[in-house]
Amino acid sequence: MPSEEGQDLIDLTREICAKELAPVVDEAERDAATTPKLPLEAFRVLGRAGLLSLPYPEEFGGAEQPYEVYLQVVEEIASVWMSVAVGVSVHGLTCYPVATFGTDEQKKRLLPDMLSGDQLGAYCLSERSAGSDVAAMTTRAVADDETDPTSYRLKGTKAWISHAGHADFYTSFVRTSDDGGRGLSCLVVPGDAQGLEFGTPEKKMGLHCDTVSEVHFEGVDVAADRLVGERGQGMAIALSALDSGRLGIAAAATGLAQAALDRAVDYAKDRQQFGRPIGDNQGLAFLLADMEAAVTSARASYLHAARLKDAGRPFGKEAAVAKLVATDNAMRVTTDAVQVLGGAGYTQDFPLERYMREAKVTQIFEGTNQIQRLVISRQLLRG
Amino acid sequence: MPSEEGQDLIDLTREICAKELAPVVDEAERDAATTPKLPLEAFRVLGRAGLLSLPYPEEFGGAEQPYEVYLQVVEEIASVWMSVAVGVSVHGLTCYPVATFGTDEQKKRLLPDMLSGDQLGAYCLSERSAGSDVAAMTTRAVADDETDPTSYRLKGTKAWISHAGHADFYTSFVRTSDDGGRGLSCLVVPGDAQGLEFGTPEKKMGLHCDTVSEVHFEGVDVAADRLVGERGQGMAIALSALDSGRLGIAAAATGLAQAALDRAVDYAKDRQQFGRPIGDNQGLAFLLADMEAAVTSARASYLHAARLKDAGRPFGKEAAVAKLVATDNAMRVTTDAVQVLGGAGYTQDFPLERYMREAKVTQIFEGTNQIQRLVISRQLLRG
Amino acid sequence: MPSEEGQDLIDLTREICAKELAPVVDEAERDAATTPKLPLEAFRVLGRAGLLSLPYPEEFGGAEQPYEVYLQVVEEIASVWMSVAVGVSVHGLTCYPVATFGTDEQKKRLLPDMLSGDQLGAYCLSERSAGSDVAAMTTRAVADDETDPTSYRLKGTKAWISHAGHADFYTSFVRTSDDGGRGLSCLVVPGDAQGLEFGTPEKKMGLHCDTVSEVHFEGVDVAADRLVGERGQGMAIALSALDSGRLGIAAAATGLAQAALDRAVDYAKDRQQFGRPIGDNQGLAFLLADMEAAVTSARASYLHAARLKDAGRPFGKEAAVAKLVATDNAMRVTTDAVQVLGGAGYTQDFPLERYMREAKVTQIFEGTNQIQRLVISRQLLRG
Amino acid sequence: MPSEEGQDLIDLTREICAKELAPVVDEAERDAATTPKLPLEAFRVLGRAGLLSLPYPEEFGGAEQPYEVYLQVVEEIASVWMSVAVGVSVHGLTCYPVATFGTDEQKKRLLPDMLSGDQLGAYCLSERSAGSDVAAMTTRAVADDETDPTSYRLKGTKAWISHAGHADFYTSFVRTSDDGGRGLSCLVVPGDAQGLEFGTPEKKMGLHCDTVSEVHFEGVDVAADRLVGERGQGMAIALSALDSGRLGIAAAATGLAQAALDRAVDYAKDRQQFGRPIGDNQGLAFLLADMEAAVTSARASYLHAARLKDAGRPFGKEAAVAKLVATDNAMRVTTDAVQVLGGAGYTQDFPLERYMREAKVTQIFEGTNQIQRLVISRQLLRG
Repeated sequence: MPSEEGQDLIDLTREICAKELAPVVDEAERDAATTPKLPLEAFRVLGRAGLLSLPYPEEFGGAEQPYEVYLQVVEEIASVWMSVAVGVSVHGLTCYPVATFGTDEQKKRLLPDMLSGDQLGAYCLSERSAGSDVAAMTTRAVADDETDPTSYRLKGTKAWISHAGHADFYTSFVRTSDDGGRGLSCLVVPGDAQGLEFGTPEKKMGLHCDTVSEVHFEGVDVAADRLVGERGQGMAIALSALDSGRLGIAAAATGLAQAALDRAVDYAKDRQQFGRPIGDNQGLAFLLADMEAAVTSARASYLHAARLKDAGRPFGKEAAVAKLVATDNAMRVTTDAVQVLGGAGYTQDFPLERYMREAKVTQIFEGTNQIQRLVISRQLLRG
Repeated sequence: MPSEEGQDLIDLTREICAKELAPVVDEAERDAATTPKLPLEAFRVLGRAGLLSLPYPEEFGGAEQPYEVYLQVVEEIASVWMSVAVGVSVHGLTCYPVATFGTDEQKKRLLPDMLSGDQLGAYCLSERSAGSDVAAMTTRAVADDETDPTSYRLKGTKAWISHAGHADFYTSFVRTSDDGGRGLSCLVVPGDAQGLEFGTPEKKMGLHCDTVSEVHFEGVDVAADRLVGERGQGMAIALSALDSGRLGIAAAATGLAQAALDRAVDYAKDRQQFGRPIGDNQGLAFLLADMEAAVTSARASYLHAARLKDAGRPFGKEAAVAKLVATDNAMRVTTDAVQVLGGAGYTQDFPLERYMREAKVTQIFEGTNQIQRLVISRQLLRG
Repeated sequence: MPSEEGQDLIDLTREICAKELAPVVDEAERDAATTPKLPLEAFRVLGRAGLLSLPYPEEFGGAEQPYEVYLQVVEEIASVWMSVAVGVSVHGLTCYPVATFGTDEQKKRLLPDMLSGDQLGAYCLSERSAGSDVAAMTTRAVADDETDPTSYRLKGTKAWISHAGHADFYTSFVRTSDDGGRGLSCLVVPGDAQGLEFGTPEKKMGLHCDTVSEVHFEGVDVAADRLVGERGQGMAIALSALDSGRLGIAAAATGLAQAALDRAVDYAKDRQQFGRPIGDNQGLAFLLADMEAAVTSARASYLHAARLKDAGRPFGKEAAVAKLVATDNAMRVTTDAVQVLGGAGYTQDFPLERYMREAKVTQIFEGTNQIQRLVISRQLLRG
Repeated sequence: MPSEEGQDLIDLTREICAKELAPVVDEAERDAATTPKLPLEAFRVLGRAGLLSLPYPEEFGGAEQPYEVYLQVVEEIASVWMSVAVGVSVHGLTCYPVATFGTDEQKKRLLPDMLSGDQLGAYCLSERSAGSDVAAMTTRAVADDETDPTSYRLKGTKAWISHAGHADFYTSFVRTSDDGGRGLSCLVVPGDAQGLEFGTPEKKMGLHCDTVSEVHFEGVDVAADRLVGERGQGMAIALSALDSGRLGIAAAATGLAQAALDRAVDYAKDRQQFGRPIGDNQGLAFLLADMEAAVTSARASYLHAARLKDAGRPFGKEAAVAKLVATDNAMRVTTDAVQVLGGAGYTQDFPLERYMREAKVTQIFEGTNQIQRLVISRQLLRG
């Protein structure tokens, strides 16, 4: 921990999670499996405590914390409620373009409500036929006046959008010209805009409280002062946001894996077979050691990238490595944690089977791990 | 395939699976997730076609097929409906003690109905506190007369029993003396016996149509002519049955992995990104190649062990290897198959997420993969 | 084993290896590390025993054994002397084109001496700039008369050729037209041909008794009746030979891994730490179990492919899988076997460190494991 | 980097390595393969530059650098010459007991020469039958007077000792009573002591310039003022030193892996196959990405543990994780780096095959990776 303030934030997070999140998570996730439901109250609690604003400037309502601290807060939340931690990371992503590429006027107007958690954000990037291939997106924004636009009209459909239907604003990437990856722009769409409609929530394997559905822009008019950055700068903004977003997912995956490991260790100390705790069997103890190595090296990896970012140095490759390592490790650790509990781990009497289902999506979103390998190898091989 | 007859059986299995199982599996598994329900009709269909009797002697209604053929039938079924394949393997296990250790009289009396599928079996071995540690079991059978018993009274609770509450007979392992592993015996309990009661089905991560619950013997009287093998021979019978049972699970896990791979390959050929099928990306193609290598080597491993068994040679180590390799590979292949489909794979629109949930239990039941490593290493290090 | 004759051949191989190869292998490999030297006597011994002719027809001096038997013989040899097993596999490869694509006249003239081991072969396929990319080869054969050639003049350099400088004949692939992959042809060059010269043996990491160097064709005239198959058929012949050659390497890698495992098990039973054999530690025992699983599944994989080949069915994908699985597993098993011995394993007092060095090349030659993945994925994705 | 001074030290290290070590390493290692020879001049050069004293107090000639800096210096050296980096780490270990447990008088008398590199140290802990099991050691030190000793007489044999025969002092752990692990003590034996003799250097798989042999104490008299810490405190000193020593090995393994990755990337950019650089093949590019992830997460892991140590917090578990992760990753990365170069990588024309041989020992020394798993799992499961 770089500072006492950082440690205080972690302690605060633990306290809130233990008191407000832990008692409700199991039932909320179980219920959401049949009826998807975003735990809005959880975000409000975290927002009121100031935990949704951590990495942003004090001037606009942020806590101006280093990423090193912010990410450990995300990890803590994930160790108690993964869906909420992912939501926090997604929300952070929705604020990023304004905070980083917005004008001062936009920051003053938009950021305070975003950072206080009064307004929850959704991040509209993916489309059905434009997942990894961002430049293939077809959702369009047409200016009312090409030379001096006062508004844009959006048409198209975004897919796999967290918080869709519940968010107060939609940080959206849309096509403003046919110039491939250079024809994209970023707009912050108000949640109550006319023509903004939503699909049925996806039925997923897990992470049920992270409700996800399509967002339909059916001729949505958005004021031109909600364009973030330059026209055509959308791809650059999206990629820059992704670098930071990957660290959020890496931290969340680490928290999930830590929770799984903790449960597995507890079980290995308690459960008796052949007249002694199963943790006394070196075969199982070594499995736990490998799980610990996976969690600790994942944490070290995201902190390493975070420190580079905090120091203002390039961190894109390290962020991709952290996302790759932390999520692959989380998949392995949660799968092995179920194994430690054996038949019990396979039942819904323990949260381990849920952790394993939740881990899988971390290898997929914010750029599949195949995309991470592409990012990393390009940096290695160029030049 | 060792014979034309074997190939015919595979073809028959494929036809039945395509016609009777494939159209209903998705809905049945989805429904059973909330309301556990054993697909009894599926077993009846397979039984009528003679597919529940394959490895047993013709004299008692079996098809007298080599294990090499029987296991490939199990693999075929698993590639369409894993829960049913597991049920077939379990049912095979319940017939094994009578077929192998029973008297001629018992074989004639009991086997025909078992092998025709008129009677479905359950296998009562595990207890809450006696999972891997079979010798710790506490369910007791007390003889009415120690020197010349006419019946045994059973008291105790078995846990994690497939088909509980639906089976027509329960091949049960119980304690008949305090002599540790040498005090166990095997009895075939009729499904309609007085005092036989059942717990609530377990809520599991998957394999929902393989309903599992506790079996309570609340003073169940069983005629002495239903004792299989000698008193005290129970442990030997159970271990011998497990060697064969492991091969059934290895074959089923291979079928499940093959199904996942097939779906992933189809998707990789169809799904376009960056203007071409995603399978054209060598990174993904190599992942598919590794999945193919995992499936093919798993299949080769169980067939290798089956041929040893068919030739009357020792196959215990090879069966443990096949179970370990096939189930670890199935876990990896199904997890990677979800990855190939990306976000789509994480939704319930495709069966991949179900396959992944089903794969996990194969690493756990019929002896966890830690137990397999114990079995293998003991054989390596003894002598 | 499919036959008693097969078992007899295995027994014979064991006997010869124990008597003739085992006593000299350690010193021969150590000496060859500084002064490369092909163990010609070992090949002569095996040839005299008929072990170089196994998979070929009796009519031409072969033993007409199924591949299933031949490969187990290769495995046995590899478990004692890897360099020799590789040499046997390479020699088998050099006979393959004549035996499979040659005219009856060529078979009668050339095969008997090849199969008896009187003549040792080298296989000239790779070039410095044409490794995986066979079609890029530049070594040329120019006919003396385009319409009715009596001889070809060869110019160019082959690289990484086993037995170079020692072989009695060189089964060579050369360019006879500029038509890319369709412009290659196969010629059997006598070892005493004028203009045939050899480079300095490569200094390698291991497998020192498999001497490897460049072969220079400096205007070598070869009679036209030594052309095997049609002009332009070279690529097809080479690829067909490779399918079989991969099985030879898979079997050899399995033998090497088995030898490493055997030594590791012996050490784990003998070496005492903390007052008991180190094999009593479950952590180490489980490592040994995983090694056993790797060796057994590798063996099952090559036997599976061999049975397909013996039955006249397609086996290319399965051969690529067997090569990939067996060599990756051999690398892992030999590395872990050194680990089991700890510091002792890292010294040259035990052959384990040598096994590990030898294993590495099996992932590289006869098509790198990247090429195997390419072959497998193409078969999966086509159609 | 925590400071500008730290960055200056890294730059200095790079400069010295490039100028003094890089030009001689290949030949020195090749020669030492047949005639083991410690590169004393390399240590002198590093000592003169102050690089052997980094983590120790300025008062006694140290540079008082945080471990975070010291370890990155070790990594830099390892990326050029692994044997020397290991020697630097071993030398650091030999100074540790005096610097940490010594009296002020001992520090003043002994440390300056140790830290300047005027005196090279050897670390005498292991014995043939006491490797992982330190408490089993039998080398004895008998006091001339039990109540007020002026000297100790040492008898016994230490095994696997780096720098044996070349060191100026031997930091030795010996038995001073029969009280198991509590009967050990630490003595600094002068290199010119009477009765100090050395075995023949071990013939190893690699790391040839790290000469290793037995050390025989044949009645060596050592003055009592060379006892470090209390009598009976030896085990505690050794374990404490190991925690730090593990970080040195983790850093060295990371440097070795980085060097291998760098060479592989260079080759992948240069080498053409199928008409383009092989790095353009995504299958190979993804392999490089996985190697980068392995190197970066290893580095992050040792820096994470180092920062805990520098902050005065417990770091034993994290040091064991760093050693486990960094050395397992180094083994994998160097093996895969050879693969990237294919046949070329298997020859001695490139240093890759050497890197792979050197990586293996890092999984074995300073506590095998099995011991690391034991250390980690004990910390997880206790309490």
